Amino acid sequence: MTAAWVAFLTDYGRADGYVAACHGVIARIAPSARVIDVTHEVPAQDVRHGAVVLADTLPYLPPSVVLAVVDPEVGTRRRAVAVAAGEHVLVGPDNGLLSWAADAAGGAVRAVELEYRLDTGATTFDGRDVFAPAAAHLAAGTELRALGRELDVATLVRLPDPWLRVGPEMVEAEVHVVDRFGNVALAAGAADLTAAALDQHPRLRVTAGERSSYLPLAASFAAVPEGDPVLLVDSAGRLALAVNRGSAAAELGLRPGDRVTIST
Amino acid sequence: MTAAWVAFLTDYGRADGYVAACHGVIARIAPSARVIDVTHEVPAQDVRHGAVVLADTLPYLPPSVVLAVVDPEVGTRRRAVAVAAGEHVLVGPDNGLLSWAADAAGGAVRAVELEYRLDTGATTFDGRDVFAPAAAHLAAGTELRALGRELDVATLVRLPDPWLRVGPEMVEAEVHVVDRFGNVALAAGAADLTAAALDQHPRLRVTAGERSSYLPLAASFAAVPEGDPVLLVDSAGRLALAVNRGSAAAELGLRPGDRVTIST
Amino acid sequence: MTAAWVAFLTDYGRADGYVAACHGVIARIAPSARVIDVTHEVPAQDVRHGAVVLADTLPYLPPSVVLAVVDPEVGTRRRAVAVAAGEHVLVGPDNGLLSWAADAAGGAVRAVELEYRLDTGATTFDGRDVFAPAAAHLAAGTELRALGRELDVATLVRLPDPWLRVGPEMVEAEVHVVDRFGNVALAAGAADLTAAALDQHPRLRVTAGERSSYLPLAASFAAVPEGDPVLLVDSAGRLALAVNRGSAAAELGLRPGDRVTIST
Repeated sequence: MTAAWVAFLTDYGRADGYVAACHGVIARIAPSARVIDVTHEVPAQDVRHGAVVLADTLPYLPPSVVLAVVDPEVGTRRRAVAVAAGEHVLVGPDNGLLSWAADAAGGAVRAVELEYRLDTGATTFDGRDVFAPAAAHLAAGTELRALGRELDVATLVRLPDPWLRVGPEMVEAEVHVVDRFGNVALAAGAADLTAAALDQHPRLRVTAGERSSYLPLAASFAAVPEGDPVLLVDSAGRLALAVNRGSAAAELGLRPGDRVTIST
Repeated sequence: MTAAWVAFLTDYGRADGYVAACHGVIARIAPSARVIDVTHEVPAQDVRHGAVVLADTLPYLPPSVVLAVVDPEVGTRRRAVAVAAGEHVLVGPDNGLLSWAADAAGGAVRAVELEYRLDTGATTFDGRDVFAPAAAHLAAGTELRALGRELDVATLVRLPDPWLRVGPEMVEAEVHVVDRFGNVALAAGAADLTAAALDQHPRLRVTAGERSSYLPLAASFAAVPEGDPVLLVDSAGRLALAVNRGSAAAELGLRPGDRVTIST
Repeated sequence: MTAAWVAFLTDYGRADGYVAACHGVIARIAPSARVIDVTHEVPAQDVRHGAVVLADTLPYLPPSVVLAVVDPEVGTRRRAVAVAAGEHVLVGPDNGLLSWAADAAGGAVRAVELEYRLDTGATTFDGRDVFAPAAAHLAAGTELRALGRELDVATLVRLPDPWLRVGPEMVEAEVHVVDRFGNVALAAGAADLTAAALDQHPRLRVTAGERSSYLPLAASFAAVPEGDPVLLVDSAGRLALAVNRGSAAAELGLRPGDRVTIST
């Protein structure tokens, strides 16, 4: 058997020892498991942001136990779950964090509510005490059903779909995610542009709030002069606003949830 | 033999190549060793902060060579040491950084002063030139005593104990550490609360400087409404001030070393 | 065969899933390869900074496939290359990023233009789609020549040499890199100081713009009182301005590219 992969995402940051405590728990239970840190820089308690990053990264990972913890309701009755989806098993709080990743993997097939808890006396660090042990046991070969009571996957919490409307020569979508370069990805993809018959226009009108401007539709950042904005299909297949060697988010003042209209 | 673990903590940050140079040195000397990065975001030269994170994380790590470098006195006569404690061996500067971790592991049992130095000509990067080679050789199976002259463990530098006073219905303690969420952990634990006969009160008075307020004593952040402060026992067993989905450190203006009084 | 090492440097940051997607691509193609993350915090699109960190770290790495991506011209006709140099193979965009690392490894010996692209439909993420697959195939044992058409190494893009002039009792050099501690490394080394007959002076005059002051030449930060500036030879062998427990860059207002004169 080759070593199992654990893909690990949290909002813990790397300044404290929280991530390492989880790595340690995994190493003790499943010493041959290998961990890929997806990110630990999800903005604190931003479940939606974590869900986007997880779903976008998943298709490029090897078959993995996915350990994801953005968990503002830790210590309450929110469920702790493990969800089989495609070639992956997703472990985390049942707050929607896993839902888009499950979709990206082909949909949740089976799920259990986690029952085991590391006996540390703590109630505020389920990443270490509940989720990492479960992920490690899965990575070490334990069957999903051995981790807890089976759930109806239809009861798993889902995040609301991001806002998107496609009409003739018009795509309206909310900002889905902003990356570290300031690229602004919309909740719309290349197919939406085609459906709106907008994909053959060399320039498109982009309206956000009061502001409106015409942007070239191009294949790369560098297709426009330095400092200029551009509309492109990003590496996750989404329509995105970018600025060559600059930050579209800063320049256009856009944040996740803001609505943008693409038209002629 | 299973691969040896090296747990690695510094204040180097990840923006430069310092951490990777140490990883490289380890990989050359002990190619089968596996590294768990505890954190490299200790505030620059903050030995005390590094000592807290290391001690809090250690109980969850597998038996490890612990490589810890927060070393403002690099290049001076401060000693470079390796310390056997419990199932771990701690490697780093003898400036107190290792002392609380050694305590957490059951106490220093044996120690040596490191004698080997990688011949790079440098005097300012003992992480790469002294500590990583020592940790790697230990991970590769070299005996502690082969690394240098034995020391009396009683001579190892210790950090001063954090300030704590427990009386009838009163716990006074300094802020021990603030985490990335702004949770404020005091140098007092659940047992101190019990000793002060404060653990059965649903609300406790928290005084810091001029400010005083009553906070609920609860089991989780989410036990109070969003934005509200709460007193809880954190994942390291410490009394902590937190704000549900907010930052207690920012809200209460508290920093490590500040004194807080818990009373009725 | 021992596992191959992949050393990985980008300007992607760790907040998004870009780095992890590349880790995933490597894991799928070369599951036994082991990755050392050099840094992913290169300032966005700062090719020169990435080149410095890579060249400084390389000598301490085991023989590696070096995957380096700081790629502002992604999507244009800039070449994607793999370059054999010493015991390493360097993979990345042909924009100068690899040039100083190739020098540090003894010079580029052979190179190919990468031809394979992961079929994701994307044009803006060659780290995931072109460079990581190439690095992974090399780590899995594929020969360099199998990755694409051979290039003349003399045609590889080089960064301009940093500015440096050495005269009698005078070294003029630009700031080469500033690290996270605010240490200011010049594009001059200990040998330049010796060539200028400056290495025996206990104090040297340091002039930057309008400001001029005498700094002690010492072996460590802690050789001067806390808060005092010092001139030393840093861990990469460069002349550097530092402040004991402080930031020379902040104190002296210096940035990469600024010119500094060392004299008597």
